Amino acid sequence: MYTLDETHDPDRTSWVGSANAPDTDFPIQNLPIGVFRRRGSAERWRPGVAIGDQVVDLFAARDAQLLPADVAASLAGCEHGELNTFMARGAPARAFLRRALSEALRSGSPEQAALSPCLVPQAEIEHALPCRIGDYTDFYTGIHHATAVGKLFRPDNPLLPNYKWVPIGYHGRSSSIGVSGQQFRRPVGQTKGAGEVPEFGPSRRLDYELEVGALVGCGNEPGEAIEIERAESHLFGLVLLNDWSARDLQAWEYQPLGPFLAKNFATTISPWIVTMEALAPFRSAWTRDVADPQPLPYLDSADNRRQGAVDLRLEVWLQTAAMREAGLPPERLMASNFRDAYWTLAQMVAHHSVNGCNLMPGDLLGSGTQSGPGEGEGGSLLELSRGGQTPVRLSNGETRTFLADGDTVLLRARCERDGFRRIGFGDCAGTVLPARVR
Amino acid sequence: MYTLDETHDPDRTSWVGSANAPDTDFPIQNLPIGVFRRRGSAERWRPGVAIGDQVVDLFAARDAQLLPADVAASLAGCEHGELNTFMARGAPARAFLRRALSEALRSGSPEQAALSPCLVPQAEIEHALPCRIGDYTDFYTGIHHATAVGKLFRPDNPLLPNYKWVPIGYHGRSSSIGVSGQQFRRPVGQTKGAGEVPEFGPSRRLDYELEVGALVGCGNEPGEAIEIERAESHLFGLVLLNDWSARDLQAWEYQPLGPFLAKNFATTISPWIVTMEALAPFRSAWTRDVADPQPLPYLDSADNRRQGAVDLRLEVWLQTAAMREAGLPPERLMASNFRDAYWTLAQMVAHHSVNGCNLMPGDLLGSGTQSGPGEGEGGSLLELSRGGQTPVRLSNGETRTFLADGDTVLLRARCERDGFRRIGFGDCAGTVLPARVR
Repeated sequence: MYTLDETHDPDRTSWVGSANAPDTDFPIQNLPIGVFRRRGSAERWRPGVAIGDQVVDLFAARDAQLLPADVAASLAGCEHGELNTFMARGAPARAFLRRALSEALRSGSPEQAALSPCLVPQAEIEHALPCRIGDYTDFYTGIHHATAVGKLFRPDNPLLPNYKWVPIGYHGRSSSIGVSGQQFRRPVGQTKGAGEVPEFGPSRRLDYELEVGALVGCGNEPGEAIEIERAESHLFGLVLLNDWSARDLQAWEYQPLGPFLAKNFATTISPWIVTMEALAPFRSAWTRDVADPQPLPYLDSADNRRQGAVDLRLEVWLQTAAMREAGLPPERLMASNFRDAYWTLAQMVAHHSVNGCNLMPGDLLGSGTQSGPGEGEGGSLLELSRGGQTPVRLSNGETRTFLADGDTVLLRARCERDGFRRIGFGDCAGTVLPARVR
Repeated sequence: MYTLDETHDPDRTSWVGSANAPDTDFPIQNLPIGVFRRRGSAERWRPGVAIGDQVVDLFAARDAQLLPADVAASLAGCEHGELNTFMARGAPARAFLRRALSEALRSGSPEQAALSPCLVPQAEIEHALPCRIGDYTDFYTGIHHATAVGKLFRPDNPLLPNYKWVPIGYHGRSSSIGVSGQQFRRPVGQTKGAGEVPEFGPSRRLDYELEVGALVGCGNEPGEAIEIERAESHLFGLVLLNDWSARDLQAWEYQPLGPFLAKNFATTISPWIVTMEALAPFRSAWTRDVADPQPLPYLDSADNRRQGAVDLRLEVWLQTAAMREAGLPPERLMASNFRDAYWTLAQMVAHHSVNGCNLMPGDLLGSGTQSGPGEGEGGSLLELSRGGQTPVRLSNGETRTFLADGDTVLLRARCERDGFRRIGFGDCAGTVLPARVR
């Protein structure tokens, strides 16, 4: 599906020294795109590309005529700090930008002197959402999560009959999606205890969900399905996504129409969109047994079987208020791999549009919680604490069944493969504030 | 909640003669706002207000300096054919516009000669959506619908335990919302019959749903709940809404996360937003027994009990392809009243935001299907045909259990009360096209 070229060459280094550190998320082989400005400034939001611990200010580079004309032209329409028009231009515009920046940032590039003034240290910036997200859809592709959560409710029959046929998804809330660094109040609402009358108050079972988000590049016309063979050409790239969830609100409200207030108070995504081109070396075979059951034809293709998955290691880290005050760093709670999802990105796109639903540039598709198959690989506290029964012990002596006020949850991810430079996603961080006093 | 003033005076007539016809939807007491242009032209979309069979072109009136300065200023930001910035200005901007136009359009107004050139016949226009709808939420406030549909699945226990406590809602799809006149292809997808393997093909149980849509005016900040006492001040006005539904897709996909492809292929709204001010004379008491059960405090207020409902007669009309070819007009299938909803508009807003979810100007809140309590008052074919068992007979000899290709469904609505001029909503029409051949 994707071509490997000189931009993936593991021997290519950058004149930005920090990009050559072995543990950086942003070597010259990554070049993810986001929207930023100098922190606390009144600058207009602008597109930028991460390189090591720096950002290339794309508007500064364009205004200094350091971008090829076609690349500069492809950024027209992003003046309001939203990448939607660039995203709508699809793979060619992304590939031109990638090649131009890889060439300009590589060691020995004649553009080093001219481009250096266009760099801004990441330590000095703040992010906005990279695009206007018109619609946000959340899928449920993590079969280990679906099974674990199903077991809490239906021990004998955890997976519903449609799970292995239908890439289950539902619509989420766009207005409350924030970028890494988002802080939100603990949600308040109805919960149902043993009594006849529901209780009302702050959620006591607040949770995170470890997800991957796919952003749509070019969309489709209403009534025109996207065939699976071309589904990935409609994707721009991936981010990390935390689908914060209030389990007690969810249990009481979700029948028969699905989660609502349990989810729509906040959703956090990471700021840098890792493009489909950057992910090319890390594609892997669709791991599930394709005979169990054979997917319907609109969800099946040779390419999807061969390399529909993404070998992407995912991690959840937690820093409590006490840890922060004691100067302790975040602590890792678990790790899983996006490769283990039951449905692929291409299947999500093909399914979403098969009925004629139109996808738009900038739309966000969540993967659903990505739990691993093993013990302790749950992508939520609901799983790690077995429904709140078994507290998770932290190394400073604290325990958690669900999130406490002041907790910061960080999602992290990286792709690694022998013969290629490792690439990462940066942090997707969010912090729980106390509930609003009424 | 709302003040009656001279704009509601039933004796006020307009120099636009068609506005004085007793059966018009748009007397001078209504003055709904929409976005339009001359049909087939390349004009920019612009805001307009309906009066009789005409539209006042608000930009033409503004440019001719026929609007008071504060009203003209309130339209700034609507140059791209979206009313969001005007809507965000809340009730004062709406009320200024209403009073200015009522004064300018009344019989004997000195502005008649100057304003006349700003009128465009409705027969010569086309509509766009009135605003950018960032998020669309669909509620489930029609208890007679919830009961009737629940009976099809659970004869002994049709209403779920949360129904009388929680204003159930879920997120819908924004991208596929269209304005009256929308045509869409019959959706294709998975359905589950008796066999082990799901079937794939065009929906065979395509349906409409009769709903009222509320558009948000000014929003709220994340984390700040909207108290019920002020909830209606966040609403701009109402439209009609057809929540097209593929029942066979829905039955197979909706567990556990709710409807998805069964709904997101198309949603149609009427073009004219009837403002909260125009509806003021038609408010009525919340009809349900408030002791069964007593609502939680965040869903209860004296104003809401006294006049939280809207006395709005709703109708569904059908014109089949055969009727159209034979020159037969649409035929009425049913009527119900929005007054019978179990939850009010204010309760929808208060519930939606109680967890801190931020509503935005232009967001759309659907009421859920509004079925009446009686036989033959179902707001969907699923109800009228008792789950497809009892075909509905049309006067030309055709029958329907679900919709056929070529069917046009029209929603209509009007408010009537002794001592006031009747106001209407105009048509909300949509047509089913054949499924796409793959």
